[in-house]
Amino acid sequence: MVLEEQTPEIKDPQNNDAEAQHHEVQTDVHMDRDFVQTLQYALRKDDETKILELLEEVHAADVADILEVLSSGQRTKLIALIGANFPAEVLAEIEGEAQDDLYEQLPNEQIAEAVTEMETDDAVYVLEELDEEDRAEVLEQLPTDDRVAIEESLSYPEDSAGRLMQRDLFAIPEFWTVGQTIDYLRSDSEDIPDDFYDVFIVDPTHKPIGSLPLSRILRTARETTIADIMRRDIFKIEAVADQEEVAYQFSKYHLISASVVDDAGRLVGVITVDDVVDVIGEEAEEDILALGGVRDESGLNESFIEITRGRFTWLFVNLLTAILASAVIGMFEATIEQMVALAVLMPIVASMGGNAGTQTMTVSVRAIATKELSSSNALRVLVREFTAAGVNGTVLAVVSGLVAWFWFDSLMLGGVFAAAMIFNMVVAGLCGLLIPMGLYKMEIDPAISSSVFVTTITDVVGFFAFLGMAALFLL
Amino acid sequence: MVLEEQTPEIKDPQNNDAEAQHHEVQTDVHMDRDFVQTLQYALRKDDETKILELLEEVHAADVADILEVLSSGQRTKLIALIGANFPAEVLAEIEGEAQDDLYEQLPNEQIAEAVTEMETDDAVYVLEELDEEDRAEVLEQLPTDDRVAIEESLSYPEDSAGRLMQRDLFAIPEFWTVGQTIDYLRSDSEDIPDDFYDVFIVDPTHKPIGSLPLSRILRTARETTIADIMRRDIFKIEAVADQEEVAYQFSKYHLISASVVDDAGRLVGVITVDDVVDVIGEEAEEDILALGGVRDESGLNESFIEITRGRFTWLFVNLLTAILASAVIGMFEATIEQMVALAVLMPIVASMGGNAGTQTMTVSVRAIATKELSSSNALRVLVREFTAAGVNGTVLAVVSGLVAWFWFDSLMLGGVFAAAMIFNMVVAGLCGLLIPMGLYKMEIDPAISSSVFVTTITDVVGFFAFLGMAALFLL
Repeated sequence: MVLEEQTPEIKDPQNNDAEAQHHEVQTDVHMDRDFVQTLQYALRKDDETKILELLEEVHAADVADILEVLSSGQRTKLIALIGANFPAEVLAEIEGEAQDDLYEQLPNEQIAEAVTEMETDDAVYVLEELDEEDRAEVLEQLPTDDRVAIEESLSYPEDSAGRLMQRDLFAIPEFWTVGQTIDYLRSDSEDIPDDFYDVFIVDPTHKPIGSLPLSRILRTARETTIADIMRRDIFKIEAVADQEEVAYQFSKYHLISASVVDDAGRLVGVITVDDVVDVIGEEAEEDILALGGVRDESGLNESFIEITRGRFTWLFVNLLTAILASAVIGMFEATIEQMVALAVLMPIVASMGGNAGTQTMTVSVRAIATKELSSSNALRVLVREFTAAGVNGTVLAVVSGLVAWFWFDSLMLGGVFAAAMIFNMVVAGLCGLLIPMGLYKMEIDPAISSSVFVTTITDVVGFFAFLGMAALFLL
Repeated sequence: MVLEEQTPEIKDPQNNDAEAQHHEVQTDVHMDRDFVQTLQYALRKDDETKILELLEEVHAADVADILEVLSSGQRTKLIALIGANFPAEVLAEIEGEAQDDLYEQLPNEQIAEAVTEMETDDAVYVLEELDEEDRAEVLEQLPTDDRVAIEESLSYPEDSAGRLMQRDLFAIPEFWTVGQTIDYLRSDSEDIPDDFYDVFIVDPTHKPIGSLPLSRILRTARETTIADIMRRDIFKIEAVADQEEVAYQFSKYHLISASVVDDAGRLVGVITVDDVVDVIGEEAEEDILALGGVRDESGLNESFIEITRGRFTWLFVNLLTAILASAVIGMFEATIEQMVALAVLMPIVASMGGNAGTQTMTVSVRAIATKELSSSNALRVLVREFTAAGVNGTVLAVVSGLVAWFWFDSLMLGGVFAAAMIFNMVVAGLCGLLIPMGLYKMEIDPAISSSVFVTTITDVVGFFAFLGMAALFLL
């Protein structure tokens, strides 16, 4: 189901002229302050009719966004007010704290009813988020075939192809003709999914042997045999494959849909590109947050406890590494006492190293995720990053050295400062590449753990190189 | 065109058992060191036949990746060797430095020939990367209708829907019947694109008024009129809309394809979800790199000069802000001289603030990009982030204060240290949210510019608060 009761028009956001107001149905209403305020007003007035009227024209995805924007109290009230009239599709769209709240508040019978209407992948999305007990209760209330399909999907690992796939698909034997296929489609059989893009061709053991885009069936004469026109070169995805891998393949090979097979190679489902769009978004989001030191579950729409907890670990680890760097400074207390200028300049050395390291690290983490960095080109990339760090380090160190020289009227101080900076930036460039690669080899997610190592090293090396050289040459 | 001459199988990467080796065609060969080495060996031997044989079974996307993995010299040699046999589809897949090299090395006639075979969006991808002169030459050699279509696409702004769209589409009037539509499709007319998913219905002025998924046409009786079964609720995208907005809409509303309209509302093209997959990847990539202080054009596969230049600006800006923070320290030279412990501890205060700020900033930048953060929930989010920063700041400050107390045997120093840390982390939490929001309001990309501001503020505030309080209370 692609679209429901709406005719929105996507405008250039820079060009909000009067014409842009003529949507028959508003999209992105959750971004529209007036709409949200009208809704909140109706909520305060307990005006159920008004609320239902407001939400009626709104896409389920926007209703979900609105629930996420509301405060926890407003949300609870809204759900309680419209209760049994709550639009079922919203259950598959909602995220974060609002999702927990909604599933908790709605009776399990209503959830079961909503799930029955959904495609397998959406149903799985809802059921994965329920706790054990509620999940069992909801599953119990589903029609047997839905329950079996969903239970089988849930038996695959989290974030696997098996959970992403849609189980309703249209598969035919290769000896059928185009005419037979079209007639079967017109027969209105229960087995045919609502909308689909490719027909799969299976052998007698239900292994996929080909596929056919619908446009090709439409454009071929009725008497043609499927075997003569089908594509034999189909993509098969193992149901246990990780969703990140699935997304990578779809995006790289421009797939529209791909067949999913079980251990025995039998066709068990189909993944279409629209499901993958969400995965690509999720995976990029995970990397962005991880690089920023934020656990995935502590975004803006999570509960206060999740947010606080999701940030704490990283801050605590950072405190330990910061103390380590301070201990290095502590080794040179006597040196600093003799020359306070060192205390003034040392954060610059550490900071420049940290930034140079973060740059290389960010590029490397992404290159590993997108498979642009491999053992075939690692050495060449290393040389290039090393040289780039060296060139930038040298130019910036000369500038900084001059500043330090004039500021503290000491050529030697300027020289030591510049030398320490070049050294630290080159080390940073190398660490920024080698640490993510090393973590990846050890099967640790480089996005999550690289920056602790990189910044710790650039701090420690920066302080040690600068203060150490100062102790040697300046005093 | 989704697949060509291959039957790959996507495996769970954790589960590389023997069975996984039975691909009929290898995918991801650019990650396979043996394959790349065999190719490099053939290249050294000038063995054209072997190279063509090796590459024959490889998907164009993988050939592009291999070119990106090779050194510039190897790449030039490879392109020269296989020359006229160079697979045309690779032109639309290649990126970075390899893309520049390839387009430069191939004669314009060969590029023109390849472009003629492509869909409009791929053709536009190639032509946008050529310099003025080559582009004019290639355009000149295209068949008139291709040229007009591509020139019109190129007339839309970079990164707009107009450049993403496919111009070949299948549009019919609403009074046609299903049978008429199918017969027309079978007529093998030149106007019908190879593969498509939706049929568009247009009024006499060529404005889109409905759409029909092919599966629905196939499942309906021949005599039914299109007007009776078409969906009237179609998504229209303005050709000038930004691709980021397009990607957001596709992903939010689970679209498969959407019609693109010109100023006058006439149907000019169609965007399908597979094109959007690339955009989502690109946009996330841009944000990740920007947050890491890397300009988009300086990834691993760019030339040395691009890499060095793409990192320099950020490092230079960072140097200036680091000097600013040092100037703050410089104001307290006398204080530090009297109590060197301050120099040891001050980087911890700045670092903890920097990390807390980066966390909130990362979350905020993403929430703005995904439209989860709006004026409707800004205040509530602000209070929550403020409280979370306060709680984490307090817990960690107490720990740090105790460490400082025992380390330097001064309760007062521990107290000042803890107080400065709490203050800086709360400021960091607020800045992490308010700065991205402010930049967004001023129409500046928050991903690119937020972190300079956030880290500058946390450094300056951290040093000033800690050293200032120390000067007041400790001396």
